[in-house]
Amino acid sequence: MSKNFEVATLLDYYGMLLTDKQREAVEYYYNDDLSLGEIAENLEISRQGVRDSIKRAEAILFEAEEKLCLLKNSRKLEEGLKIIREKIDVIDDLNIKRYRSNDINESIKIILAELEKLGEM
Amino acid sequence: MSKNFEVATLLDYYGMLLTDKQREAVEYYYNDDLSLGEIAENLEISRQGVRDSIKRAEAILFEAEEKLCLLKNSRKLEEGLKIIREKIDVIDDLNIKRYRSNDINESIKIILAELEKLGEM
Repeated sequence: MSKNFEVATLLDYYGMLLTDKQREAVEYYYNDDLSLGEIAENLEISRQGVRDSIKRAEAILFEAEEKLCLLKNSRKLEEGLKIIREKIDVIDDLNIKRYRSNDINESIKIILAELEKLGEM
Repeated sequence: MSKNFEVATLLDYYGMLLTDKQREAVEYYYNDDLSLGEIAENLEISRQGVRDSIKRAEAILFEAEEKLCLLKNSRKLEEGLKIIREKIDVIDDLNIKRYRSNDINESIKIILAELEKLGEM
């Protein structure tokens, strides 16, 4: 069974769509790097049961991303916010060095606070 | 059976998590305002079957939102982008009327393009 490390990232987004057993198996496997045998022992199920749980969980995670695009959209959001923040810094810098407008300064502060909030989403 | 119109909105976000039959039943009921009897005729299932499909679909939609918060986050994103756009307009206006900086103008153009892209997400 080969590991696809995208799974660990998808787990952050869609972990709540899995059953407890599926989520535990995937976490042990991808986050804690346990072997199928070790996971089987921890969950008190067969090695084949672990394998099946992980396979099923992976299918659910990839299907969820294909349908809902949370990861793709989150990356898009991150990129967009980064560009906006860079350009706000350019304006801020020009304002500090040249124009010294309090109104621009106030607007920049509010924009930065909003960017911060959106970055935490 | 009472109608909760949040369902129509959730359908836009999570419709792909439903089976074809569930989605069709909910669309007929919420978007086209058909009666259970009319939907039963269209889908060639019983009235009770329609009722069950809609109830099951509603449960899936609300559970998906509770777990994934797509609608809640989309509203947050919309609000944040609106505030940023308003403050960019303030800066743009000041720049046009007072400072006439090409560098600020260029940065604003790029920011507005990014805001537009994020608004379409």
